[in-house]
Amino acid sequence: MRTLLTLIALALTFPATAQEAAAPVTPNSVVAEAAPEEWIAIPPEDLLVMELAPDAEGEPRRVVIQLIPAPFSQPWVENIRTLAAAHWWDGTSVNRVQDNYVTQWGDVTEEKPLPEGVVAPEVSYTISGVHRMLDAAGSPNLSPDAAAEHTQFVAGWPVAAESMRLHAWPIHCYGYVGVGRGYAPDTGTGAELYTIIGQPQRHMDRNLAVVGRIIERMEHLSSLPRGSGELGFYTEEEAHLRTPILSVRLASELDAQPTFEYLDTSSESFARYVHVRANRDDAFYTVPAGGVDVCSVQVPVRAVSE
Amino acid sequence: MRTLLTLIALALTFPATAQEAAAPVTPNSVVAEAAPEEWIAIPPEDLLVMELAPDAEGEPRRVVIQLIPAPFSQPWVENIRTLAAAHWWDGTSVNRVQDNYVTQWGDVTEEKPLPEGVVAPEVSYTISGVHRMLDAAGSPNLSPDAAAEHTQFVAGWPVAAESMRLHAWPIHCYGYVGVGRGYAPDTGTGAELYTIIGQPQRHMDRNLAVVGRIIERMEHLSSLPRGSGELGFYTEEEAHLRTPILSVRLASELDAQPTFEYLDTSSESFARYVHVRANRDDAFYTVPAGGVDVCSVQVPVRAVSE
Repeated sequence: MRTLLTLIALALTFPATAQEAAAPVTPNSVVAEAAPEEWIAIPPEDLLVMELAPDAEGEPRRVVIQLIPAPFSQPWVENIRTLAAAHWWDGTSVNRVQDNYVTQWGDVTEEKPLPEGVVAPEVSYTISGVHRMLDAAGSPNLSPDAAAEHTQFVAGWPVAAESMRLHAWPIHCYGYVGVGRGYAPDTGTGAELYTIIGQPQRHMDRNLAVVGRIIERMEHLSSLPRGSGELGFYTEEEAHLRTPILSVRLASELDAQPTFEYLDTSSESFARYVHVRANRDDAFYTVPAGGVDVCSVQVPVRAVSE
Repeated sequence: MRTLLTLIALALTFPATAQEAAAPVTPNSVVAEAAPEEWIAIPPEDLLVMELAPDAEGEPRRVVIQLIPAPFSQPWVENIRTLAAAHWWDGTSVNRVQDNYVTQWGDVTEEKPLPEGVVAPEVSYTISGVHRMLDAAGSPNLSPDAAAEHTQFVAGWPVAAESMRLHAWPIHCYGYVGVGRGYAPDTGTGAELYTIIGQPQRHMDRNLAVVGRIIERMEHLSSLPRGSGELGFYTEEEAHLRTPILSVRLASELDAQPTFEYLDTSSESFARYVHVRANRDDAFYTVPAGGVDVCSVQVPVRAVSE
């Protein structure tokens, strides 16, 4: 009876033509039907535009990175804004591509001076006292997780926490961007960055700082030739494979600012999206998994044309 | 006290110089220390060698695929052996590369006749009556899983099952190979194959047949240019991006047979490997995750030189 009532309620909430009612619900269809007010604009100071050298056919390669908002990883994010404002990455390169692991970029000489104020912050890979923030996020319950006691979405970002949820930390999913460092945990500034190009690398969580994610043209980083040196670094014989970085700019510095929105992770549509993602049952999929990993729920992001 | 005894037992079991004793334990170091008898040879009839056209620099591109053993997906695996013996893939191509999803290959015309006997089998994406096999596998317990009630390794392969473990099925991890099909579940023969080039796609489990995994030079498939058509297919304007497949052969048909071994997933070393993978604590990682996803435990495979 409750099921029937729920169905009626859904039918009232989502009036549809006979044809629309028959169309199977997919993650994409849920996102397409989200209400305009469920989309949240990304501030231009949280967008980094990276121009790689054109590809072999002369096509430009522009990648857009969204920086993670407070309270996560902010000392590194501030460094990254300083580095971008100083045009520090101009003339650096992509130096490491390790299959099913990471693509990494920065200064291959490791000798380029950093702008004033850019120093490796004291280590704070986890955020404390976040119980209220996690409660207020209102994101749907996720399936059991292999690498954390609790996972959820906070302000558009996948976050893990221990069971008491007093400490939380961001997660290394596909396309997420982190801060390279040396052996000591407190040696990363944000000048050396990597992005995950294979399965999630959850053992990096709490050991390295997640500072952003690629939201446009990830393939410019994931489809690069793999390096044959140790850890996927290009060897000296492969120096020609290093992709030059022409420029990295904060969108707020650009005349033509790209604008993006993400689907509010506390919205009804996002909750439906997670549910459908965990229970695919449509024209192609007939056996629902019944659950979904936090990294398999990619937060919908869209470019907004002027 | 128990901890101390355990440490002593470990010290006795693994005598080492002072320097070796001080070296941190990593997944790689556990694999390197595995005993010769913990490695199992892969039969040549389970190895497919795929030669792609040389790359832009004229370098050959050879990929090796291991086929999944019984009892999983065998009707499709038999089809694949028949297709390889008929040299059916020679002259076909890689036609689809969708970022963070799949690379797919086969006959782009969809009109090439199949060898006699190659027909889409009745659907059997799960295997029944496998409780004893799963019990006998002796693989270590894994962390809670988002997409299945139970996961473990069976004869070298990641497998999921429902809680009673009467039904089991293979898993779509990075580099795993599956059978493309049409909308109806029983429309795949094995002629059209894909491999996962991003995060695991667990919603495909039980909906598509896992028939193998790439065990050598995965990067030849994962680093290809992405297609801009629907689902990542190359458009007609991008026809030049389709990578030609020169040949696909069963290793048992080759004069110079490549030989590979995998680490016995019921061995002590594999259990240690899973434990260390879930609890990285070494010169670089200082905060162990405490758990690991089944797909993040890549089964060690090594080439054996003659």
